[in-house]
Amino acid sequence: MKFNNFKGERVFTPGPVEIPDRIREVLGRQIIHHRTKEFTEAFLETRELFKRLVDCPSENFVFFASSGTGAMEAAVLNFFSEGDKVIAVVGGKFGERWSELGKTYGLNVIDLSVEWGKSVNPEDVEKLLKEHPDCKGVLVQMSESSTGAYHDVKALAKITRDRDTLLVVDAITALGVYNMKPHEWGIDIVVGGSQKAFMLPPGLSMLWFSEKAQERLKPRSYYFNVKKEAEKQKEGQTAFTPAISLILALRESLEMLLEVGMDEVEKKYSKMSQGVREALKEIGCQIFPENPVISLTAVLPPEGVNADELRKAILSMGIRLAGGQGKVKGKIFRISHMGMDYLDVVQALSAIELALNQLGKKVRYGSAVGKYLEVISS
Amino acid sequence: MKFNNFKGERVFTPGPVEIPDRIREVLGRQIIHHRTKEFTEAFLETRELFKRLVDCPSENFVFFASSGTGAMEAAVLNFFSEGDKVIAVVGGKFGERWSELGKTYGLNVIDLSVEWGKSVNPEDVEKLLKEHPDCKGVLVQMSESSTGAYHDVKALAKITRDRDTLLVVDAITALGVYNMKPHEWGIDIVVGGSQKAFMLPPGLSMLWFSEKAQERLKPRSYYFNVKKEAEKQKEGQTAFTPAISLILALRESLEMLLEVGMDEVEKKYSKMSQGVREALKEIGCQIFPENPVISLTAVLPPEGVNADELRKAILSMGIRLAGGQGKVKGKIFRISHMGMDYLDVVQALSAIELALNQLGKKVRYGSAVGKYLEVISS
Repeated sequence: MKFNNFKGERVFTPGPVEIPDRIREVLGRQIIHHRTKEFTEAFLETRELFKRLVDCPSENFVFFASSGTGAMEAAVLNFFSEGDKVIAVVGGKFGERWSELGKTYGLNVIDLSVEWGKSVNPEDVEKLLKEHPDCKGVLVQMSESSTGAYHDVKALAKITRDRDTLLVVDAITALGVYNMKPHEWGIDIVVGGSQKAFMLPPGLSMLWFSEKAQERLKPRSYYFNVKKEAEKQKEGQTAFTPAISLILALRESLEMLLEVGMDEVEKKYSKMSQGVREALKEIGCQIFPENPVISLTAVLPPEGVNADELRKAILSMGIRLAGGQGKVKGKIFRISHMGMDYLDVVQALSAIELALNQLGKKVRYGSAVGKYLEVISS
Repeated sequence: MKFNNFKGERVFTPGPVEIPDRIREVLGRQIIHHRTKEFTEAFLETRELFKRLVDCPSENFVFFASSGTGAMEAAVLNFFSEGDKVIAVVGGKFGERWSELGKTYGLNVIDLSVEWGKSVNPEDVEKLLKEHPDCKGVLVQMSESSTGAYHDVKALAKITRDRDTLLVVDAITALGVYNMKPHEWGIDIVVGGSQKAFMLPPGLSMLWFSEKAQERLKPRSYYFNVKKEAEKQKEGQTAFTPAISLILALRESLEMLLEVGMDEVEKKYSKMSQGVREALKEIGCQIFPENPVISLTAVLPPEGVNADELRKAILSMGIRLAGGQGKVKGKIFRISHMGMDYLDVVQALSAIELALNQLGKKVRYGSAVGKYLEVISS
């Protein structure tokens, strides 16, 4: 069967994700200058929308012209000093990144290893913190995109909030998906990235911080200077040239998310991911993480099917899924829900049904899609 | 006179500059994933074009998802160690930035002050280098955008090339304007930014380095790691998520520049800027820098005219010029040539003629435009 698609590849990858037309229109506009009333107003509007997104009126957040890793670096370089003891939860590729970043900048990093696919047990964090009362921070992912595992940052915040320890959350594939309330929950630092649930091209990152974190704000970076940026940005300006088009497109994206409402957005992704998990189990797949996130699903293919061969067959149909990274390379495939609508997902599930049959793993056509429709309509 | 423009503001600012339709079309496209053959091929094509731009076959260059300051930071954090002695040529706002960056990261910075609007005398640099034979680097702008002054980096390279000193050139408003040949000239590091002569939105920076610089490559940054990026990027990949849309748009931009040819591009900007300078002198303005760049013109308005009032009047006509920064705030205005075509410029000059008359400084209509047309057609 040849597909001879007229349209380009559809990206069901956990970042970058498809850009809605409404945002593409903004991205294709003529540039405006950033040292203008027009930009300042747009930027301040964007900031107002962002406050609604994180449900907190504070001005303690900044945007950087960088990918998400830049904002992770900013977290390390603005809120921790050389020699500071921190715990890094390492249960996937992005947990490893926290650990590497900390070590690069002279932090005393205690790696809390978690089996890939498992979520960290908050009690283990509490125990470690009791052993190390001088621990200045806990660095963790809310959504560990490499394994699809959810780390319960709400539970972790209950442990850190009354301690002299900052809870630093990489929410790159969680912000804009979950109805996150970092202030209410007691999280200290939240890091986000544009090419995930915000449905923008990569190149814009965000860092939100609590009042407790603010007391520890001591910038060690010139480019990623949270203090200087926060002061400028609350007035609608930036220390260095901002990613103008991405800021304007972020305003559009935040409007889209908030028109729906973050409660509804979370419900949508929750239902969608539940549908995908049940659909895939219906055709012999297993869900890789024990406690999955709702922004993406990491999947073990049926016995005897190689994940990368499956992805290759699906790609020939015009659907791009993500593979495994690091330790689970070739073992799992990952399907993103970010930026997707309910009916988009049936394309990916149909392609999986087709590809499995093609690879000799017979599944009844319509069984995954049927299950998905059943779940989402219930 | 009311303008009642149908079209948006035209930006004659030295970054961001107007984006040609051909590039806007690319920016408005659907996203593609970066860990793909399609992106890798496009990225490698972009790199091939960039090699032609800098007239050097070496793979010693990287792109970052950041604004230009990010690449300046990368220069300091990858090629210099704490305590290294460097000379920073400080003759404007961006020279100050080199000095600040060096000091932030523990370099022993000797500020070589140059009067704003003047260009550094290469002999002064040579003298300083003789006094400080242990000096590891000279940090300078090729085009000091805040004053419009040209620093003769070709002459400086003759001084540094046989010394153990790296010549680090911020070419953010020079690359893509001048037919730069860093390898041939003996420059060690060149920094560029997307929103200048490349006519892209901000958010992508570039750093080229010589073989001599490569020997000193010792990254101190996780995000701005030139070594890691150079290794990945020569294979068509990046260490962290790249600014996908900007890379694809850069390919388009480089194709546009190279279709014309950098020799012709430089001739165009050279003629255009000469025309602008002579036109403005015709109506009583003075050119601020002694040795002006061709990417922009910094101008002192006629006696008795306030630069900011003049700009405001021009803005009401739909033309945005830039003001002075730092020490020359309110004293000068700046008009960018980057991304402009010959006949675009007559709009700005006409607006200046109109505004001067409006502010009571009578000039003969058509005198500046006439002079400009005379110069460019000669």
